[in-house]
Amino acid sequence: MKISAPKFMTDWKTGVVTGPEVQGVERRVRDLDGVFADEGAFSQLRPDRLVYRTACVFPVPEGTEGGVFWGTTFIEPGTVGAEYFMTKGHFHAKADRMESYFTFAGTGLLVLMDTARNCWAEEMTPGSTHLIPPYTAHRTVNTGDDVFSFGACWPSDAGHDYDSIAESGFSARAMRVDGSPVLVPA
Amino acid sequence: MKISAPKFMTDWKTGVVTGPEVQGVERRVRDLDGVFADEGAFSQLRPDRLVYRTACVFPVPEGTEGGVFWGTTFIEPGTVGAEYFMTKGHFHAKADRMESYFTFAGTGLLVLMDTARNCWAEEMTPGSTHLIPPYTAHRTVNTGDDVFSFGACWPSDAGHDYDSIAESGFSARAMRVDGSPVLVPA
Repeated sequence: MKISAPKFMTDWKTGVVTGPEVQGVERRVRDLDGVFADEGAFSQLRPDRLVYRTACVFPVPEGTEGGVFWGTTFIEPGTVGAEYFMTKGHFHAKADRMESYFTFAGTGLLVLMDTARNCWAEEMTPGSTHLIPPYTAHRTVNTGDDVFSFGACWPSDAGHDYDSIAESGFSARAMRVDGSPVLVPA
Repeated sequence: MKISAPKFMTDWKTGVVTGPEVQGVERRVRDLDGVFADEGAFSQLRPDRLVYRTACVFPVPEGTEGGVFWGTTFIEPGTVGAEYFMTKGHFHAKADRMESYFTFAGTGLLVLMDTARNCWAEEMTPGSTHLIPPYTAHRTVNTGDDVFSFGACWPSDAGHDYDSIAESGFSARAMRVDGSPVLVPA
């Protein structure tokens, strides 16, 4: 009976995932119109500058009940005015679905918002492990000077609701104030 | 608005998870009667010798739909006759639920068996990342000389069906043959 080599490898220092079916998205400045507060500063950035990218493994089609998806997000260091580079953020389409995050490299914030628009954040540092509650929007922010990377594991039927955030945003923004991250009401 | 320290930390070198609600099980020799093939060799082991333990985070009650559970399993090095120390193994109670594994330390095998009792295995080494398909029993085996540890992430409504394995076992066993692991028909 057969013993096979592992199909996927994860580098725990960087979060880089290798394997035959690793796929992801890239979000560049041109993909993030309307996300950051300072439109003047945003317009000065090179449109093809990378802000973040993902490398994920999807063993079953999105929407399948009972599966788990797994992957790494890499956020580049940078700011738009005083606001740190960050992901768009989303609720899950099936809003009760949870998710777990675990940090590989760099420093950041996990910004969370419930359906009543209460907003809070958790610091992310290498090894930090986070549980995203049901009905909670989540966004990650690179507050450091190096690439910030973290793994995520989430149900394959969770889906993404980006529209609620595109319309109403989060109720707070992660800004650099005197060199440190502060969560400022939006 | 509040920025909190992370609640949980994972040591990527060892898999040790720390935090306020980390819980787990210990399986000692006395808990594993009937699991290993060589009953004579098994009876020679100290009943309180540790075989494996877990350290997990369960943010919602077991059986809740849409949550993710997360934790580390640590398997001690050792054999029962020529058979390596291993976990009991299980199907999920909701048998279509998947799971992902990722290795922190040591070397081992992920032994898998489908409902037709076809059995196969994947090598586990630090960084190796594994996807357990639906309807597939899974068991892990320490084939090295040091503690073997790996993380797991699985749906909170998966549950455990240990009884099927307790009754019929896996159709193969991981044995040390000439110093190397071989999957031998049971």
